[in-house]
Amino acid sequence: MATVHGFFHPRTATGRSSLVPSPPWHYSGDLLTVEYRTDPARVAELLPAPLEPAEEDPGAVALIWADWQSCAADGAELLDPVRSQYKECFAVVRCSYRGRTYSRCVYIWVDKDFAIARGLHQGYPKKLGSIHQTRPHPYGPAPRLAPGARFGATLAAADRRLAQAVVTLEEESATNGFVNGHPMAHHRRLPAIDRPGTLALDELVESGAAAFEAGPAWRGTAELELFEAPTEELAALRIEEPIGAYYRQVGVVWNGGRLLESATGG
Amino acid sequence: MATVHGFFHPRTATGRSSLVPSPPWHYSGDLLTVEYRTDPARVAELLPAPLEPAEEDPGAVALIWADWQSCAADGAELLDPVRSQYKECFAVVRCSYRGRTYSRCVYIWVDKDFAIARGLHQGYPKKLGSIHQTRPHPYGPAPRLAPGARFGATLAAADRRLAQAVVTLEEESATNGFVNGHPMAHHRRLPAIDRPGTLALDELVESGAAAFEAGPAWRGTAELELFEAPTEELAALRIEEPIGAYYRQVGVVWNGGRLLESATGG
Amino acid sequence: MATVHGFFHPRTATGRSSLVPSPPWHYSGDLLTVEYRTDPARVAELLPAPLEPAEEDPGAVALIWADWQSCAADGAELLDPVRSQYKECFAVVRCSYRGRTYSRCVYIWVDKDFAIARGLHQGYPKKLGSIHQTRPHPYGPAPRLAPGARFGATLAAADRRLAQAVVTLEEESATNGFVNGHPMAHHRRLPAIDRPGTLALDELVESGAAAFEAGPAWRGTAELELFEAPTEELAALRIEEPIGAYYRQVGVVWNGGRLLESATGG
Amino acid sequence: MATVHGFFHPRTATGRSSLVPSPPWHYSGDLLTVEYRTDPARVAELLPAPLEPAEEDPGAVALIWADWQSCAADGAELLDPVRSQYKECFAVVRCSYRGRTYSRCVYIWVDKDFAIARGLHQGYPKKLGSIHQTRPHPYGPAPRLAPGARFGATLAAADRRLAQAVVTLEEESATNGFVNGHPMAHHRRLPAIDRPGTLALDELVESGAAAFEAGPAWRGTAELELFEAPTEELAALRIEEPIGAYYRQVGVVWNGGRLLESATGG
Repeated sequence: MATVHGFFHPRTATGRSSLVPSPPWHYSGDLLTVEYRTDPARVAELLPAPLEPAEEDPGAVALIWADWQSCAADGAELLDPVRSQYKECFAVVRCSYRGRTYSRCVYIWVDKDFAIARGLHQGYPKKLGSIHQTRPHPYGPAPRLAPGARFGATLAAADRRLAQAVVTLEEESATNGFVNGHPMAHHRRLPAIDRPGTLALDELVESGAAAFEAGPAWRGTAELELFEAPTEELAALRIEEPIGAYYRQVGVVWNGGRLLESATGG
Repeated sequence: MATVHGFFHPRTATGRSSLVPSPPWHYSGDLLTVEYRTDPARVAELLPAPLEPAEEDPGAVALIWADWQSCAADGAELLDPVRSQYKECFAVVRCSYRGRTYSRCVYIWVDKDFAIARGLHQGYPKKLGSIHQTRPHPYGPAPRLAPGARFGATLAAADRRLAQAVVTLEEESATNGFVNGHPMAHHRRLPAIDRPGTLALDELVESGAAAFEAGPAWRGTAELELFEAPTEELAALRIEEPIGAYYRQVGVVWNGGRLLESATGG
Repeated sequence: MATVHGFFHPRTATGRSSLVPSPPWHYSGDLLTVEYRTDPARVAELLPAPLEPAEEDPGAVALIWADWQSCAADGAELLDPVRSQYKECFAVVRCSYRGRTYSRCVYIWVDKDFAIARGLHQGYPKKLGSIHQTRPHPYGPAPRLAPGARFGATLAAADRRLAQAVVTLEEESATNGFVNGHPMAHHRRLPAIDRPGTLALDELVESGAAAFEAGPAWRGTAELELFEAPTEELAALRIEEPIGAYYRQVGVVWNGGRLLESATGG
Repeated sequence: MATVHGFFHPRTATGRSSLVPSPPWHYSGDLLTVEYRTDPARVAELLPAPLEPAEEDPGAVALIWADWQSCAADGAELLDPVRSQYKECFAVVRCSYRGRTYSRCVYIWVDKDFAIARGLHQGYPKKLGSIHQTRPHPYGPAPRLAPGARFGATLAAADRRLAQAVVTLEEESATNGFVNGHPMAHHRRLPAIDRPGTLALDELVESGAAAFEAGPAWRGTAELELFEAPTEELAALRIEEPIGAYYRQVGVVWNGGRLLESATGG
């Protein structure tokens, strides 16, 4: 009888077909972050027990656009960029677990299947979307990284625009925002095949960057709009009060996390 | 503390954001099936223990194109067809488990995220692809369902063509092929977040149609080509001997399966 | 010195690279038509001289979804369906030219480049879009062609939904609507390379089907919504009064048209 | 009677729907250029009279990948980047016209409709494709602009890969190659609606950048592969001898050209 290999499906004799190779996963990317406050009740209702609202500023939300190039340890994907480049837009809130503050991604859209696969492992609730963000450029009409530079960012899924933002940079900043600054507390859940309403996998996991480098952050302001859609609830995180907006280039390594609790088989 | 709802991620207070609603899932579709024999060793190496090669004709493969419209019980997706229509191409082999013959999907590509989500539940190892198949039509140049009618079918992923077929119909047929005719034996596996090389979920599940209706099957011949790609192994299922080709319109309901064995937490 | 061949660009020694082969072009497709009345002034302002508003019912609009398979005379595209299948949504009004009534496509979105190329030849003002329409099916949850059957149809471009309709069939119908029932009067225009504001090509052309066959038309009612977008004006054709909705399967041949007038070089 | 406005179709009362606004068009982009020599006969057969092969090095070809952000004079598209960002891959050769050397784009693929529209005006023979190129990045695994940096670049159309390259940078360079360094000599042609085999528009036009700025060019080597496809002839420009490869960031303005000769109406 055979043994099959590969970090992810489809598993084969060689492992070569796996939708995503084993971690560590390496990323180069540009982040455009818009932070604002919504009704804390809208955040709280997205935090299943045992998670609780963050003690401070429990209605803070970060909506983040990211333009990534990613690869596994050997970097092969970088030379076939249809396999390394992807874009994403995700909504992050904070929560508390056993007295510690975590970040938590509550909605996320990406534009490649390998990114969906990594999200299943990491607990990011990924859907497919169409994501765009202005890139800074040193020549021509695209913005330089400088005071007054303006960047657009948009998100659509299922042929509907869900969010759009225009960010105007003001100055370099000591931070890139605070909402996405903690370790992530995510659920990894899969329904049972045979018992409706029950879960075959039910884990609360923590993960974060195994390594991180970054350029200077820029701070500015954002005009952000969220739009309704029949199968989306991003717009329920209504914008009550703007906090700020940020631009930063980063390099990240992700290399696993740890299990906080498991109700699998429970 | 909150409770979140929804069959799949992202889970929310309402459940409305779930990437896919709860089963039962209903499907209307057109299937174009090409069956052939490959080296049985190439099939056997894709069957992890305790699965074993089928006793009869262990090198038989079905490569199936399907053009679907699908929905949950209330049919809402049918009226917003970007959420109901998808195409897929998948390779099916047979195997034996405890003396019973099963079908097993070893590779599959789809073109929508909700189809990926359903595959995670059902154990189909889905990737994104670009899938096309000729549709019969009663007027104009597209083929009628009649002897001599010719249908093209193609599969690409990551900007590379992986398979193409031309099927020529000959006559109505008592069967739609035999390789995909058994209950499916699939694995549902997710790597552990914290122990490289181990699995957090490791299930062997069985599922099949809860209801099925179909029009007449048509039988014919196929010219099939498979192409190499760096991250795909479909072409390793080399065509040694053609068996036949089939066209059929079907209606299917899927409503859960059963757990054959679980090594989760093992 | 060389001669290059091909109906359309890129022209080469063989002509094989042409984005679209020479007419005649053959089509098999399903049409979903929604007719309504808008303010006649909104139609009139889209009719450049010498076109005038239609004498009767000058505010009538047809918004038509079509799901096509198309090919040139040898049918090669049908066996490589990524090159034959496309979808479109287009808005048609009527106008008068020298006392004769014409149909005229004022907006159209398609999802393939070969369809854009054909539109440049025929005078259809094509953009890319994402177009979906429910397909009837004899099995499973998709609608049969029968009283009460419901079809959804949607249009998006640049990540924004522009139109959506739900059509409910009532009965077979003697007609498939009247707005798109005349020969088409279209402009073919290309700006001059060197004189801003002038045209290098400026033709008014007439064309229609060289051959046509069709199944029974079905008549019903539609709920239609149009949405604003920064670079689109479809929603300016506001729905003042519904007329009706239709479903029909057709086969069409297009094989050139005739020049009504030319101001090229004028 | 009405007058309609807009640089391109669809023309309306406001001009707002035009697929592309009037020039000048502004571009920020990254160019990855691979130059090589093919059989000069393969170039010559793509040069319709009165164009002739370039006197020196008549078999030189540049295959260029470009990752663009573009906009009209008011820059509105930059803030809705789905309307400003696009990628392209194009093959350039040189030719001679009345004793002067020109560059000429013989094949080009883009991924947005507004880019197709601009190409129709400029005489670029655009098709849709899927184009990817590695982007340099200051952090993480993506390459820095430095000796030894490696960039991948790929092109696909109609679900088939047509070209792929890996470029390795060596050093800063005084040039960005020579094949694409001249004014462009392009044809703008549209078939007549009513006389098969004749042209309604038949112009030879010259254009080039109205303004240009750029960072340092980098020179290196490339491994380039071209692949056959049924409706493409890029691979006929077979690689006989590598010349070099280049990377450069540029800012460009395009603002019209001039008519070299016209056979329109001829």
